[in-house]
Amino acid sequence: MGKNKVTLNDVAKAAGVSSSTVSRVLNHRSLVKSDTLKQIEDAMNSLGYIHKNTNTEADSHDNAAVIDESPLILLSIPSNNYQFYHEIISGTYEAARVHGYYLITSQLALDPDSDPVFCSLVRQMNVTGVIMLNNVSEKFLNEIQAICPVVQCCEHNDNTAFSYVGIDDYAAARNATDYLISCGCRKIAFLNGPLSYMYAQKRRLGFLDSIKTANLTIPENWIVSIGEIDYDMAFSTCYRLLSLENAPKAFFAVSDIFAIAAINAAEQFNLRVPEDIMVVGFDNLEVSRMAHPAITTVSQPRRQMGYSAFELLYNHILSPDTPTSIILNTELIVRNTTARFL
Amino acid sequence: MGKNKVTLNDVAKAAGVSSSTVSRVLNHRSLVKSDTLKQIEDAMNSLGYIHKNTNTEADSHDNAAVIDESPLILLSIPSNNYQFYHEIISGTYEAARVHGYYLITSQLALDPDSDPVFCSLVRQMNVTGVIMLNNVSEKFLNEIQAICPVVQCCEHNDNTAFSYVGIDDYAAARNATDYLISCGCRKIAFLNGPLSYMYAQKRRLGFLDSIKTANLTIPENWIVSIGEIDYDMAFSTCYRLLSLENAPKAFFAVSDIFAIAAINAAEQFNLRVPEDIMVVGFDNLEVSRMAHPAITTVSQPRRQMGYSAFELLYNHILSPDTPTSIILNTELIVRNTTARFL
Repeated sequence: MGKNKVTLNDVAKAAGVSSSTVSRVLNHRSLVKSDTLKQIEDAMNSLGYIHKNTNTEADSHDNAAVIDESPLILLSIPSNNYQFYHEIISGTYEAARVHGYYLITSQLALDPDSDPVFCSLVRQMNVTGVIMLNNVSEKFLNEIQAICPVVQCCEHNDNTAFSYVGIDDYAAARNATDYLISCGCRKIAFLNGPLSYMYAQKRRLGFLDSIKTANLTIPENWIVSIGEIDYDMAFSTCYRLLSLENAPKAFFAVSDIFAIAAINAAEQFNLRVPEDIMVVGFDNLEVSRMAHPAITTVSQPRRQMGYSAFELLYNHILSPDTPTSIILNTELIVRNTTARFL
Repeated sequence: MGKNKVTLNDVAKAAGVSSSTVSRVLNHRSLVKSDTLKQIEDAMNSLGYIHKNTNTEADSHDNAAVIDESPLILLSIPSNNYQFYHEIISGTYEAARVHGYYLITSQLALDPDSDPVFCSLVRQMNVTGVIMLNNVSEKFLNEIQAICPVVQCCEHNDNTAFSYVGIDDYAAARNATDYLISCGCRKIAFLNGPLSYMYAQKRRLGFLDSIKTANLTIPENWIVSIGEIDYDMAFSTCYRLLSLENAPKAFFAVSDIFAIAAINAAEQFNLRVPEDIMVVGFDNLEVSRMAHPAITTVSQPRRQMGYSAFELLYNHILSPDTPTSIILNTELIVRNTTARFL
């Protein structure tokens, strides 16, 4: 039975269709056109294929080939900032489980424009769909789409023809900066990520619009793009900013990792948080609660983002739809790195 | 070319061998017995197979089927404690890249004794080898081994017939406890993980032997197994211990996450670290440096563990060897949660 196994791939090849179409016949028969259905069933019959889940007589057909494949979803995540991605992965696994899909993850570092290794992997594993969390170009997404459906999660480009799940980065950044201003902060530094990321561009706009609306002026060198979400790099940046003659009195950071760096750098200057320096982070990572003081932060619904990304992909697998997007809500969680002093 | 592609699997089936044997022919021809080699080459010829990397004439054979598969390694990691596993994953990816293998990860929660879904996944994806980081039984490992080679990393059983990479948990725990005692600590609580894990059993022995050698007596209820590596659960545990009439004055924790919980619980009792309470953690997670105070901890060479696990697996793929094990060194990194006061 093992040696003789007929795979989804075998059926797909014989029928001249993609393996996700075969999978659709197995799981959602009513969604497949009748002529395609016939084509696939003919291929199944000629290969001696019996579907384990739908044909209860399978056990008695000792000489028949048996298939027990589940469709496979590949979740591609960047190799850094694992504290951020963990909850997203967890939400995606949950959705995959619910729908009877296998989920595997790849942490291959991807070139933004293309990656032949990644595409080979998707092809070789006969992946049914890809959830992409890396910062990649429209060109790259098109290369994947030529193989199987793809959905973006977190980082995305509003103008491409791909479905995505994200947050309103502009509004979240503007809201957080407004809050710091409402706490009496006038001298706010902005610890941003690389501007090659859409989230960084949008949060920068949100920060600047908030500053402008409050009629504040911020020196150019208080707005910093740190090369990656890295504690040590952020610590050095904050240390340098706090050494300036005209030093900031608050930090708005696009990651809680940066926020912890700001708190620890402030301590080197004997500055108290929040009395002398206020800090707002982003993401509501587990460490934002563990930090001392606990960090005021913008919470992203990360588990839900992963879950929703799978659901969007699932729709595309069942019926190639027009791209859709889901924007989930963020929340400002006020803890102990900010305060409204009387 | 895409539709016509001959897979490793196709060749393996036709030759009546495993696909890892076919992979060996492609990558390490000299290691394959001559009759097996002939069998596989006959199968390749009859299927019209041309190997992209070894046959430079491939491009001119427009009608020939072309194969471009890389062998696939599956890294299975538990779904929690991602801060610990991240560096291991990173080391494994590096080794996979060096050897020209694809690496993918699964965070499927596994039942210790068996998991049909996991084994189906390994079979369906035609995985060449598995690196197992979950706490699973010998029975389960045997089920995987029946499909492809498997190597354990971190959690392992010394007495099973599987290769593994690990640390000397007993010695590391004993050394850390000796150090706390050398700092003048007499009342040391032990924050352990579940005793279903070998690491937890061994570290417990190391802790107890250190205590015994120093002629100290520790109440039973200062030795706690916390259900998982979870900050909130550990905080509650530490809070409870510090509320005891006979409260501990030091914590040896098997995770830095537990150590941070101990520090933050101590603060609730207005106890200073290290003056009133000393703490030693384990793992040297990134957060152990970010914590305030920075945590004295036992460093595991996590990146190297991942790298070595791949290397061990690689040996098994090339030639089914007798099981071997690699024990890597740990180091005690002294930071600010401990001190030798005069």
